[in-house]
Amino acid sequence: MTTREECAALDAADPLAALHGEFALPEGVLYLDGNSLGALPKGTAARVAGMVEREWGEGLIRSWNDAGWFAMPHRLGERLSPMLGAALGQVVVCDSTSVNLFKVLGAAMRLRPGRSTLLAEHAAFPTDLYITEGVTGLFDGARTVLLPRAADLGEHLGEDTAVVVLSHVDYRTGELLDMAAITEQVHAAGALMVWDLCHTAGALPIELDACDVDFAVGCGYKYLNGGPGAPAFLYAAQRHQGAAAQPLSGWFGHARPFAFEPSYAPTEGIGRFLTGTPPLLGMAGLDAALDVWEKADLAQVRATSLALTDLFLELVEPLGLESVTPREHALRGSHVSLRHPGGYAVMQALIARGVIGDFRAPDLMRFGFTPLYLSRTDVFDAVRHLAEVLESGEWREERFSRRGAVT
Amino acid sequence: MTTREECAALDAADPLAALHGEFALPEGVLYLDGNSLGALPKGTAARVAGMVEREWGEGLIRSWNDAGWFAMPHRLGERLSPMLGAALGQVVVCDSTSVNLFKVLGAAMRLRPGRSTLLAEHAAFPTDLYITEGVTGLFDGARTVLLPRAADLGEHLGEDTAVVVLSHVDYRTGELLDMAAITEQVHAAGALMVWDLCHTAGALPIELDACDVDFAVGCGYKYLNGGPGAPAFLYAAQRHQGAAAQPLSGWFGHARPFAFEPSYAPTEGIGRFLTGTPPLLGMAGLDAALDVWEKADLAQVRATSLALTDLFLELVEPLGLESVTPREHALRGSHVSLRHPGGYAVMQALIARGVIGDFRAPDLMRFGFTPLYLSRTDVFDAVRHLAEVLESGEWREERFSRRGAVT
Repeated sequence: MTTREECAALDAADPLAALHGEFALPEGVLYLDGNSLGALPKGTAARVAGMVEREWGEGLIRSWNDAGWFAMPHRLGERLSPMLGAALGQVVVCDSTSVNLFKVLGAAMRLRPGRSTLLAEHAAFPTDLYITEGVTGLFDGARTVLLPRAADLGEHLGEDTAVVVLSHVDYRTGELLDMAAITEQVHAAGALMVWDLCHTAGALPIELDACDVDFAVGCGYKYLNGGPGAPAFLYAAQRHQGAAAQPLSGWFGHARPFAFEPSYAPTEGIGRFLTGTPPLLGMAGLDAALDVWEKADLAQVRATSLALTDLFLELVEPLGLESVTPREHALRGSHVSLRHPGGYAVMQALIARGVIGDFRAPDLMRFGFTPLYLSRTDVFDAVRHLAEVLESGEWREERFSRRGAVT
Repeated sequence: MTTREECAALDAADPLAALHGEFALPEGVLYLDGNSLGALPKGTAARVAGMVEREWGEGLIRSWNDAGWFAMPHRLGERLSPMLGAALGQVVVCDSTSVNLFKVLGAAMRLRPGRSTLLAEHAAFPTDLYITEGVTGLFDGARTVLLPRAADLGEHLGEDTAVVVLSHVDYRTGELLDMAAITEQVHAAGALMVWDLCHTAGALPIELDACDVDFAVGCGYKYLNGGPGAPAFLYAAQRHQGAAAQPLSGWFGHARPFAFEPSYAPTEGIGRFLTGTPPLLGMAGLDAALDVWEKADLAQVRATSLALTDLFLELVEPLGLESVTPREHALRGSHVSLRHPGGYAVMQALIARGVIGDFRAPDLMRFGFTPLYLSRTDVFDAVRHLAEVLESGEWREERFSRRGAVT
């Protein structure tokens, strides 16, 4: 069994250790929930304050040009592109993941006229299913078919399949799908592939272009550390941009937004996926987070992430909890979920000790591993707390029971 | 002609003068563009910093409950409600105006099955037309008819009219429409009325409930001073909420968002108009702006706004510029637009002097009047600059010519 001293030695040798100081984590907190809301980079407060006090307060309306506000959705998209394996001109930052998914699903349905089925996974993050349902309801004859599991895709793909939407990493189990193989399988059936990258971006390197992905969306506030409700991103492969007609046709996607023409004429390129005025305070937050990402090697992030999840799985083994997260590296994202019938209370007891993960009904305790600010000793200490909570039985205390709180 | 001394005397007696100190305007700037991007309230920087450093940085994921993040879209909606004449439970703050318009138009179309025409005004703010076009494209047989002018509504309203969408205040001319009369006219034809309140909210009192309005949307960053790209708002009359099915059915609009159910089941009430995770940094900005609005009497804002636009119209009269803004109070919003063939350059010359308005093609100089931070002496001084720019001919200098800049 790995000791705390061994953890410390490995931490000292980890190339990402130098980045831990970039984050402002509170004293006494072991934060294993960066897969839900990333930690605060130390540079963010100044960047956001600059947006508020200098760009808005002093620049006022002039900042649309002078401070580059118009270009922000594109500029942030360009900063993200290398992390997604995307050549420039295919990513924009805007709106929420849900809204962006609506746009790409709407565009994708129109790119496959004559086909009417959307395939999604039953266990997908629900907003993906709700948005898919929303899109289905707007296209005549369209229907959504839910796969029992992503692995059942082959049985359901067919000549009527227009679009397949899947999460690259499952938000509950942490299972990682094979992007290249599945995208190829979907293309072989003549359908388009939309990936939800919410639990991927910033967690592991991906190659959207190399995998020939059609569309992708993802959020800015998890592993990317963009801040609560940070704007999301949207990828549309260059080859689809010319024909793509997304339904949320707002003025920021217009070819000449300031000509104030009465008819919509989408701009060339990825810009046509923009809709309304960009949320600039949130964009400043994501911009600051990307400063940290510029210093990080994503391959190293993946290597350390696997080391952290390996370590966690090793250390919790004696506790006898079932892990629903795959052991195989190729199938694992950057979080681990453990099953416990009293999972809600156990997590509350951990949080009371400053060990923050989260709970997903009915019985999953979810722990996220973020090498930019989490070390092996943090993992060691977190598992020690978990062991104490379970052994002492303190999680059975009334104060940790579910009282209708939403976590 | 009103003198500067008279302006100063009237300013000193204005009940809103006490609020001018709440805003952080740069030295040497006369800001007449609050109708495009409101000025920065002094309390905003601290509120946003608190969101970043305390709620996010220290509270981390716990702030969803502990700092009330889940409730923000509703809480801000409740704070706005009195300014809109809306009883509680009918307003949420979320997304952009464009996205929110898509939601209410989609919902409205479904509330009028068998009717297929959307009526909008040819001169509407373009994103309203583009979004209307986007919605039209998704409903079988639907079509958009553009009214040459809002006044032509009567000729086009008919048994096939499902929805009418109009701007309460025209973004170019500043013309104010009669909300009560038009809403009644639309209802008499069996159609639903959607108001765009972008140039209304925070500019004058309105009575959405009393006018029996069906739906409304508006933005947070103009007169409300919520900050660049601040989240927008959405009003849905209580009587429609039960049956309203808006197409952007994301998890924040679900009855049980954390039950992670595969099927969409909209929550009761206005919450079903929410979609994705709320943009919390932007919401903090709007929250701080609403602190100032709590100290302002909107009837007084309207009275002073009319005094400022009256004064401006009086003072520019000798300059011989045509105003496209109605003289009659009942027909005037809170900005004035003057026509000048060299309007772009004249505005650039004004901006170089620190007098900030904006330009709308082909020939309109637009000046916004915001009594929370603009005084009569400001207006007097601004007109003096305008007179000097015109009389000196300095606007003809090369540096003020259009070079493709977007303003």
